[in-house]
Amino acid sequence: MGIIKTDSSYMISSYSVAGSLEKAGPLGDKIDFCEDGDDAFGKDTWEKAESEMQRLAATGAIGAAGIAPRDVDVAFSGDLINQCIASTHGIMSLGIPDCGLFGACSTCAESILLGAVFSSYVKNTALAVTSSHNCSAERQFRFPVEYAALRTPTSQWTVTGSAAFVVSPDKRDGAPRVTEGLLGRIADSGTDDLNNMGAAMAPAAADTLARYLKESGKSPADFDRIVTGDLGAEGSSLFLELVYALGYDVSSRHADCGLDIYDTERQDMHSGGSGCGCSAVVMSAKYLPMLRGKEIKNMLFIGTGALMNAMSVGQGNTIPSIAHLVALSSD
Amino acid sequence: MGIIKTDSSYMISSYSVAGSLEKAGPLGDKIDFCEDGDDAFGKDTWEKAESEMQRLAATGAIGAAGIAPRDVDVAFSGDLINQCIASTHGIMSLGIPDCGLFGACSTCAESILLGAVFSSYVKNTALAVTSSHNCSAERQFRFPVEYAALRTPTSQWTVTGSAAFVVSPDKRDGAPRVTEGLLGRIADSGTDDLNNMGAAMAPAAADTLARYLKESGKSPADFDRIVTGDLGAEGSSLFLELVYALGYDVSSRHADCGLDIYDTERQDMHSGGSGCGCSAVVMSAKYLPMLRGKEIKNMLFIGTGALMNAMSVGQGNTIPSIAHLVALSSD
Repeated sequence: MGIIKTDSSYMISSYSVAGSLEKAGPLGDKIDFCEDGDDAFGKDTWEKAESEMQRLAATGAIGAAGIAPRDVDVAFSGDLINQCIASTHGIMSLGIPDCGLFGACSTCAESILLGAVFSSYVKNTALAVTSSHNCSAERQFRFPVEYAALRTPTSQWTVTGSAAFVVSPDKRDGAPRVTEGLLGRIADSGTDDLNNMGAAMAPAAADTLARYLKESGKSPADFDRIVTGDLGAEGSSLFLELVYALGYDVSSRHADCGLDIYDTERQDMHSGGSGCGCSAVVMSAKYLPMLRGKEIKNMLFIGTGALMNAMSVGQGNTIPSIAHLVALSSD
Repeated sequence: MGIIKTDSSYMISSYSVAGSLEKAGPLGDKIDFCEDGDDAFGKDTWEKAESEMQRLAATGAIGAAGIAPRDVDVAFSGDLINQCIASTHGIMSLGIPDCGLFGACSTCAESILLGAVFSSYVKNTALAVTSSHNCSAERQFRFPVEYAALRTPTSQWTVTGSAAFVVSPDKRDGAPRVTEGLLGRIADSGTDDLNNMGAAMAPAAADTLARYLKESGKSPADFDRIVTGDLGAEGSSLFLELVYALGYDVSSRHADCGLDIYDTERQDMHSGGSGCGCSAVVMSAKYLPMLRGKEIKNMLFIGTGALMNAMSVGQGNTIPSIAHLVALSSD
């Protein structure tokens, strides 16, 4: 019931933008545009810097597709900042009809999934764009970075980055295709540890993957990669255990964008990267090129999001999570 | 290019929940469930009260459709609280795959539009649910209500309310139909007055309506009602002027949910009601019944949203806005 077939949704372009720590990581030379300095992108607030990243990413992806903003029918945009103002001010100047999303760190997958639906069914050319900025996120959810608060071993580093993708019904040589999508259910992890997002998100990722495999009748071996958004070291290990308990061993083909983006040990990133921008940048800089180069034939991308705000845990709530899945093919 | 045709999207049920001031307004006896007391809905925080309204509205709409939560393929949910936690905790227990949205006060129209797209194209049964709570919104965006801050004449009262709609591809006798939708572009009003949301939102509403009329070739006379979400008195007057300047006189058929929900003068509501819950409750309690009863044959519903957070204006930003349109027909 849940799997949505998308027969003509081609990811005809993508463009990634990131900060200096991301530049220093293993994907640094594959990210399209990196800030080599203070990560302010020429702006006077972190929130405006994040908007500027979205603007650069959106413009870059539209340019890479060889089209103009007026050729884009709809944007699906989102970020982590209160009321998604990074997206508002980021893509406003493009004048594209916009559908605002909130799925926490799962928003990248959510935006690609909706872009694929609008591409395949409504025959729209869609832009999917998301972002996060370490400094805007940290001061909103935890402490301003200037406080130099100690971080726990399970904590993750919110990625300073944004990426945009153009999804189109027009087939292009070499453009990977979104073949299917599955929207996630909200899972209640029972955890309330704001410094362990991986543990909060692992149950949703496991639920969505198991639902997909069960309903599609496919096995993990049918996919060259099963890539989660930002579970990090702690969350990835929990995810593999939970999926195993549900009857699937995906350990040999699992990867996590939160572990891809930094050299976690050398860069002292504790449990890895996180944020809306994490999976967006890694999808754009690593996995789409692998699909385009036929290095891998197909993959599942499972965006993961922790659903809380700076107040909700203090009010006695746990941290629920959600995970959205898109299946991608190289042909 | 922009108008999305939705040929089989029936609004088979709706259910509205609201607080005591809304109960005391002109729609009081048409709202399905009203709190007759402290608007806490049995909870110990305003945010939890808002979630409880969403839970009641979603459950009520699903029940009114004669189906169970497991029969709903997808939920489109959203609210005004940081990171949309009212929706998360409101609909989590239903176990429905969820697509989180953020469109500020336009989210009700956005959710119905996406529900209609998924209904018509993916053949999904969709739930569209949104909410706002006066006390959770005021303390987040302005001041806690206990401060009794003075309100300006242009200020609006955030509605305590939630409504849910089931949109299904299965035709039902008397169920109004979503015939078309148009996603809005982000408009920059140039205003930065946090106490005048109507002025911020009017340009987006005018842009969306004019785009729709131009592209469809229809005239205002083709619709029995043209209903905006929550422009209030100030915003409605600006909207009519802007639309007139664009070549259309809609004054004789325009109504605004923000002016429908309260007896503005008697209840001392200044410029009227606002919030995600405002248009949701009024659509459910007033306009859908008018369509069902063939009192009106068709209408346009233009949800309006102001895109800012508690910090963005302080950082020197204006308040951009967005407006999404759905066209509804009684047959």
